[in-house]
Amino acid sequence: MTTEIDTGLGGWRRSHSCGDLNAANDGEIVTLMGWVHRRRDHGQIVFVDLRDRYGVTQIVMDPEVNPAPMSIAQDLRNEFCIAVKGKVHKRPDGMINKNLSTGTIELLVEEIKLLNRAAVLPFAINDDKVEASDSLRLKYRYMDLRRPQLGGRIVERAKIVSHFRKALEEHSFLDIETPLLYKSTPEGAREFLVPSRIHAGKFYALPQSPQLFKQTLMISGFDRYYQIVRCFRDEDLRADRQPEFSQIDIEMSYVEQEQILETIESVVLKAVNGYRPGAIPGKLQRMSYAEAMESYGVDKPDLRFELKLHDITKIVEKTEFRVFAEAISIGGIINALVIKGGAEKFSRKEIDALQEVVKQQGAKGLAWAKVKPGKGIESWQSPIAKFLSDEVVDQIGSELNLGEGDIVLFGAGDYDTTKASLGSLRNHLGAKLELYSPADLKFTWIIDFPLLEKDGDRYKAKHHPFAMPKPQDVPMLDKDPGKVGAAAYDLVCNGHEVAGGSIRIHDPALQRKVFTCLGLDENEQNEKFGFLLEALGLGAPPHGGIAFGLDRLVMCLLGTDAIRDVIAFPKTQKATCLMTNSPGPVTLDELRDLHVRIQMPDLSNERQQ
Amino acid sequence: MTTEIDTGLGGWRRSHSCGDLNAANDGEIVTLMGWVHRRRDHGQIVFVDLRDRYGVTQIVMDPEVNPAPMSIAQDLRNEFCIAVKGKVHKRPDGMINKNLSTGTIELLVEEIKLLNRAAVLPFAINDDKVEASDSLRLKYRYMDLRRPQLGGRIVERAKIVSHFRKALEEHSFLDIETPLLYKSTPEGAREFLVPSRIHAGKFYALPQSPQLFKQTLMISGFDRYYQIVRCFRDEDLRADRQPEFSQIDIEMSYVEQEQILETIESVVLKAVNGYRPGAIPGKLQRMSYAEAMESYGVDKPDLRFELKLHDITKIVEKTEFRVFAEAISIGGIINALVIKGGAEKFSRKEIDALQEVVKQQGAKGLAWAKVKPGKGIESWQSPIAKFLSDEVVDQIGSELNLGEGDIVLFGAGDYDTTKASLGSLRNHLGAKLELYSPADLKFTWIIDFPLLEKDGDRYKAKHHPFAMPKPQDVPMLDKDPGKVGAAAYDLVCNGHEVAGGSIRIHDPALQRKVFTCLGLDENEQNEKFGFLLEALGLGAPPHGGIAFGLDRLVMCLLGTDAIRDVIAFPKTQKATCLMTNSPGPVTLDELRDLHVRIQMPDLSNERQQ
Repeated sequence: MTTEIDTGLGGWRRSHSCGDLNAANDGEIVTLMGWVHRRRDHGQIVFVDLRDRYGVTQIVMDPEVNPAPMSIAQDLRNEFCIAVKGKVHKRPDGMINKNLSTGTIELLVEEIKLLNRAAVLPFAINDDKVEASDSLRLKYRYMDLRRPQLGGRIVERAKIVSHFRKALEEHSFLDIETPLLYKSTPEGAREFLVPSRIHAGKFYALPQSPQLFKQTLMISGFDRYYQIVRCFRDEDLRADRQPEFSQIDIEMSYVEQEQILETIESVVLKAVNGYRPGAIPGKLQRMSYAEAMESYGVDKPDLRFELKLHDITKIVEKTEFRVFAEAISIGGIINALVIKGGAEKFSRKEIDALQEVVKQQGAKGLAWAKVKPGKGIESWQSPIAKFLSDEVVDQIGSELNLGEGDIVLFGAGDYDTTKASLGSLRNHLGAKLELYSPADLKFTWIIDFPLLEKDGDRYKAKHHPFAMPKPQDVPMLDKDPGKVGAAAYDLVCNGHEVAGGSIRIHDPALQRKVFTCLGLDENEQNEKFGFLLEALGLGAPPHGGIAFGLDRLVMCLLGTDAIRDVIAFPKTQKATCLMTNSPGPVTLDELRDLHVRIQMPDLSNERQQ
Repeated sequence: MTTEIDTGLGGWRRSHSCGDLNAANDGEIVTLMGWVHRRRDHGQIVFVDLRDRYGVTQIVMDPEVNPAPMSIAQDLRNEFCIAVKGKVHKRPDGMINKNLSTGTIELLVEEIKLLNRAAVLPFAINDDKVEASDSLRLKYRYMDLRRPQLGGRIVERAKIVSHFRKALEEHSFLDIETPLLYKSTPEGAREFLVPSRIHAGKFYALPQSPQLFKQTLMISGFDRYYQIVRCFRDEDLRADRQPEFSQIDIEMSYVEQEQILETIESVVLKAVNGYRPGAIPGKLQRMSYAEAMESYGVDKPDLRFELKLHDITKIVEKTEFRVFAEAISIGGIINALVIKGGAEKFSRKEIDALQEVVKQQGAKGLAWAKVKPGKGIESWQSPIAKFLSDEVVDQIGSELNLGEGDIVLFGAGDYDTTKASLGSLRNHLGAKLELYSPADLKFTWIIDFPLLEKDGDRYKAKHHPFAMPKPQDVPMLDKDPGKVGAAAYDLVCNGHEVAGGSIRIHDPALQRKVFTCLGLDENEQNEKFGFLLEALGLGAPPHGGIAFGLDRLVMCLLGTDAIRDVIAFPKTQKATCLMTNSPGPVTLDELRDLHVRIQMPDLSNERQQ
């Protein structure tokens, strides 16, 4: 007969966690509760590593010390849940387990309660390496979360969030909740819709951000607002995206860009250094968007390592090398990346692999040169040396400060593709060459963004349509909108955009002007943004703000590169929850109440599209 | 020509809020920003009350002191947004405004910026009484929120939330986020559904609570979890309900009821007394469900005042008075409410009004007696005296400790209706007779709930199907499920249920047994709760928790009785947001992407139902 499990604790209370006890507790009677992490039988004696989220304690059930617990002890399997009462016993010197914080003691069990059994485990919890497939792990997420590494990240996330809340409240930001049942705004990303039962044929939308609500809060007079808020985006998911994600959403009134940057920087330093003392030693760097693109090829440079892009277009302007000449003929650029002392690190095969990296970003390929002793083209081991003159090679060498043993990688083509592909290559090399340690944190502000960017023959907003143009650029909105700068800024960490924001337009006439630049006629403006325009026209104060992608921020602070690792119950790239089997079917009655019915895709039609 | 408004602040920064300055700042040069609350012209001189959320400061624009600001000053209207720079001037003694915290000073304006104009206001902001309709106020919620009373409640809410977070984190609760895109569970209240784009014909549901996720977190080993989380309920709305609402959601492992009550009580005392020192002087009272029903007629008694229900069924058992006799014949009860010294306070007309209160709860009416000097039926002025004997009247008098000038109100009928109607009458009388002050706070635990309640010829869960039966009652599940007690508890404040919780079932076999009592066969159990049952069977620890209705809690703490008053952007009883016009129409393209189409209600069909 198997032991009945206990439906209650019979008045027992945990006295300590499984990570608490050490030699100082020798002789104390304690009560621990947790899971059987591992069990070993030594003859009659049963040893169990008992685990909770705080640690592991070795407990000993010995029939000579106390025969009572043995009937349960014999039954125990991994992940059974038990409570034990017993005496702490300091281990003799030779028996100390230095890998455990509790390794100086063990617990001699006097009483035991079986709190729950565990069926056959889907995968082992007590092994650092998990052999199970991703989908099995997601289905049994609650078991995967018992593993200290993954579960620990969720604990760390809670600590980080707490530090940010504390810092924000110390800076007088008020936590105000905004609605999640919002209305559909036909801008931007795809939305999740929610049919209304009361209003047949109408829909709520789940917000992509509380942007308009937080602006409305400023118009309401709340000065400084923050919220850690769920946002939704029904887009095809990349590895670092989730259909629902969390944002630290912030807005301030009566400020210009400089004061926002100072305030938010103060919050970030307080929170991050509070969480990990000394993590950000000084002030945050600031870099213009133009400089980021020029030197790093991306608007979110990873500044944990140097490795800048160098423009050598001017030097090779006259060269006959076809690839360079073609780039120049279309108004493009030639850029170089120098890896000091890198010549020996890259075989032909490895250089071929680098070619693949840039090709994924649309570049045609990569030219390269390894620097040998000597002058002119003799000093280069390079397939392209023969197309260049001694003079050009020497000029490149001097411009890039090349020395023996260096390797130079060249990209050529139009500006955007060349920068993007070399920017991507730079990130690849940073990781491959281990130019930084995973614990490094490098924050930088990116500022001076353009207000608009070309989208075919129209303009679209670089940040969003509510961002304020730089005051001195306002007159250019009519003449040359592409040249107008925005009072907008991103906060970048380790190559990730962790926050983005702007001063918002508070003048309804200027907001209409920007909408017009974006191709919205007056009717569309009124229909889509009438509520905002009316609110701006009722004494809206100057205001601006920022939003942190919380999941990504936590990811950076914990040094992991998967957003899933920092979310308790993430969804797959197909936006499903394998644990609860969501989304799922619903009944026809429910749908009728909501005034919708399912219309399955017409596959014959799909094919034609 | 009107003045151009400023798109920026030109480097100006607020030095103080409009509530900061007093005589100690005399002579300082300061910068304030805010709204024109009120403007008065005294000849050439313009006085403006400048308002922000911190207070009001009188600013003075005098052409003799400084002519520059006058061109803007002449333009100013209420709710224009301005920034002013000037010198603080201590008012002479006769000019002090004692109604203003800043009333000892005024600001002599030297420079002014017009930050924004305001169009014609939908209603006055500077008047304590708002004449506008509810719907106009909700449409212009952002203007209504500028009024200090309403805006102030949102500020207080943020403070209360912050105190609760702090108290919870000091008690080692971890803030963990759970998904809002969940799956449809065909239990309980109506859900909001979200069609999936990727999975044609499938739906997410917005959760009514994170109940199963928080249990899953305990199974994952997180010990102590909390979250302030949005929940959704698509039900017909009463005055104190919103389709989306916020919950302080809490769960703990390895505890029994007693430890949860102690821990949560400690959190509540810390948070509430932190927010309002001394608000809860001692420990919280505990009352059984049975006692609450017996003495107060409701399971959420308002204990700010005494006024108990007294059972006099036994005393009047033999009476011939038809109403009492009928109640007794159906196994019902006769209850009395005594208002000491109340005889003079209630005219016949007022007693008739009380009749209406009990009739709304289904009671047939109310008998009453005013106590005069004397003995027996002579001592009662009462329409029912003639139906009673001297002996019964004297017995009632002695049982209820009646004295001259008291009034007694009698209810008779079946238990539920009589208790509910007198309970409702009791609340009505508490308010009418001002038996408490609006600032009073009386918390009590209600414990010892039944696990199940009758629903026709079936049982349904009193709390929810995951609540643990009291261990000693488990064997009764088979024989007499209605008698089984639950390890469940509510926290009641001033007659509102502000929190409810229970120990959860952690034994999968017991969970199945309770599901069976609720009429779910094994297939249904597996289909609806298979994921939970499997998780319980993988070593789930004993656990339990509680959830606070945050909106209602804040409402109680702020002494208001409308949930709307404590939510920044509430919805109407028709679940619409009048400010943003949500829900709204969407395009056919959007619906096609989501594989649904609108099916408007078939009205001819509806009529037949």
